[in-house]
Amino acid sequence: MQQINRIAIVGGTHGNEFTGVYLIKKFEQYPNLIQRPSVEAITLLSNPQAFAITRRYVDKDLNRCFSSDDLSDATLSTYEDQQAKNIQNLLSSQVDLVVDLHSTTANMGLTIIPGSRHPLILQLAAYLCSNNPEVKVCYSRPEQARNFLSSVCKLGFVIEVGPVAQGVLSAELFFKTEQLLTQVLDYLEDYNQGIIPQKDYKLTIYQHLNFIDYPRNQNGEIQAMVHPQLQFKDYQPLHSGEPMFLTLDHQAIAYTGKSTVYPVFINEAAYYEKGIAMCLTEKQEIFV
Amino acid sequence: MQQINRIAIVGGTHGNEFTGVYLIKKFEQYPNLIQRPSVEAITLLSNPQAFAITRRYVDKDLNRCFSSDDLSDATLSTYEDQQAKNIQNLLSSQVDLVVDLHSTTANMGLTIIPGSRHPLILQLAAYLCSNNPEVKVCYSRPEQARNFLSSVCKLGFVIEVGPVAQGVLSAELFFKTEQLLTQVLDYLEDYNQGIIPQKDYKLTIYQHLNFIDYPRNQNGEIQAMVHPQLQFKDYQPLHSGEPMFLTLDHQAIAYTGKSTVYPVFINEAAYYEKGIAMCLTEKQEIFV
Repeated sequence: MQQINRIAIVGGTHGNEFTGVYLIKKFEQYPNLIQRPSVEAITLLSNPQAFAITRRYVDKDLNRCFSSDDLSDATLSTYEDQQAKNIQNLLSSQVDLVVDLHSTTANMGLTIIPGSRHPLILQLAAYLCSNNPEVKVCYSRPEQARNFLSSVCKLGFVIEVGPVAQGVLSAELFFKTEQLLTQVLDYLEDYNQGIIPQKDYKLTIYQHLNFIDYPRNQNGEIQAMVHPQLQFKDYQPLHSGEPMFLTLDHQAIAYTGKSTVYPVFINEAAYYEKGIAMCLTEKQEIFV
Repeated sequence: MQQINRIAIVGGTHGNEFTGVYLIKKFEQYPNLIQRPSVEAITLLSNPQAFAITRRYVDKDLNRCFSSDDLSDATLSTYEDQQAKNIQNLLSSQVDLVVDLHSTTANMGLTIIPGSRHPLILQLAAYLCSNNPEVKVCYSRPEQARNFLSSVCKLGFVIEVGPVAQGVLSAELFFKTEQLLTQVLDYLEDYNQGIIPQKDYKLTIYQHLNFIDYPRNQNGEIQAMVHPQLQFKDYQPLHSGEPMFLTLDHQAIAYTGKSTVYPVFINEAAYYEKGIAMCLTEKQEIFV
């Protein structure tokens, strides 16, 4: 059995997501909080220049810079391209697992976004869900997940917490995230000791299907907002015919897909520029 | 009696406060919404370059550029300094009243921040409060208010709505703000027609006392967050001994002032860089 002896806890991949940044600062001040007898945790503030200017990024989104093609492309040389290469060099061969801490303006509660369906990650995610009903597990599409920082290791996942505005510290989410990390570390310690009880879990996952953009006019300008009935309703079912958007002149626009979907990242501030109003997911029950 | 025949509705003074920006866009598309028989309303997107990059400002905070000293200082030449001078030229002599639309990550509901205690503004504010219990009236200190865009006219006020993250459209706040503006325009029309009933109002105002910064270490780094019991509790009484902050290692820090205060702008994202965690106000009842 592979041991997980060295992990990296990463924060500030997006410089205006303060939960991760200040947890890293706390762990640097109190390193014992994240050490376990068989698990050494290192911390990394991954985009310090973006944090210094309280922006998501300096030149481009760091959390979209980790595809193997991009990492090996010497012509990519922005600040974030260089950071990605440095981080990959630092982490890929030296740690067994990466946890990357993010926050969102959407009502995602405590979301685990695994980098893969590795059994260890699935068991860990199922354990965290069984401990806390606020924890949800959301799978990105592989072609997206391979761009994430958490893909630098075979074992990696994102913790995405919200709702919280960019550039704001939420004490409540800060301590909930810290508690979740504590449970991760305790689990890994028990895993290394071989004392994790073998348990079959039924795990609910939300599998990303596709992105939905805001309705826009021919100039690309937004013509409708997330409908108030859908705002903050991440992970709740959206049925055909239910309202999705409300135009600036107050006309409701319904969801017209046939199947019931579960939107996430609803009205995430950072996704306006990406042309994403929400991500639709499919709810699946799997056995792990 | 002075007639109010021409007003300016301004949005996007901070480029990442979308409520105002998209209301301006809507009014430009449907100009009849803001015209009344005796009131002509012009619209202004006041910081288009900041909106284009979804930031509060390009070089400096435009809503701190309107003191008469700064406006007459030819050496001040950043983008926002130039915008301030252009806006002053455009508005100061040509409109009777300015309404500047802002949003905040704090739970300020629908807040009116008047530029002065002019009887017309006080009567209007009292009328709006009597129509809608969500409306609050908050007075900045004069030395701050004179820097605001809304100070370019003798009659001016800010509408500050929240909570909403920066760079996010809240449909609910968008339509509430539009409704408030409709009431403002209707009131001004009635005022011009001389059909506003003479009424003595008792008006509650929140008078700004002082700013409180986050607890910081000797390097200026934040050591404590707004306490969860105070988060989103704008306009609610804070008594001596009640918690204000929670340190990163979970120690509560109490408010130690003697008098009961009413904090506003609690945990506003844009104020971290200004060294402001909240503004303390005094609740006053006045007769207008």
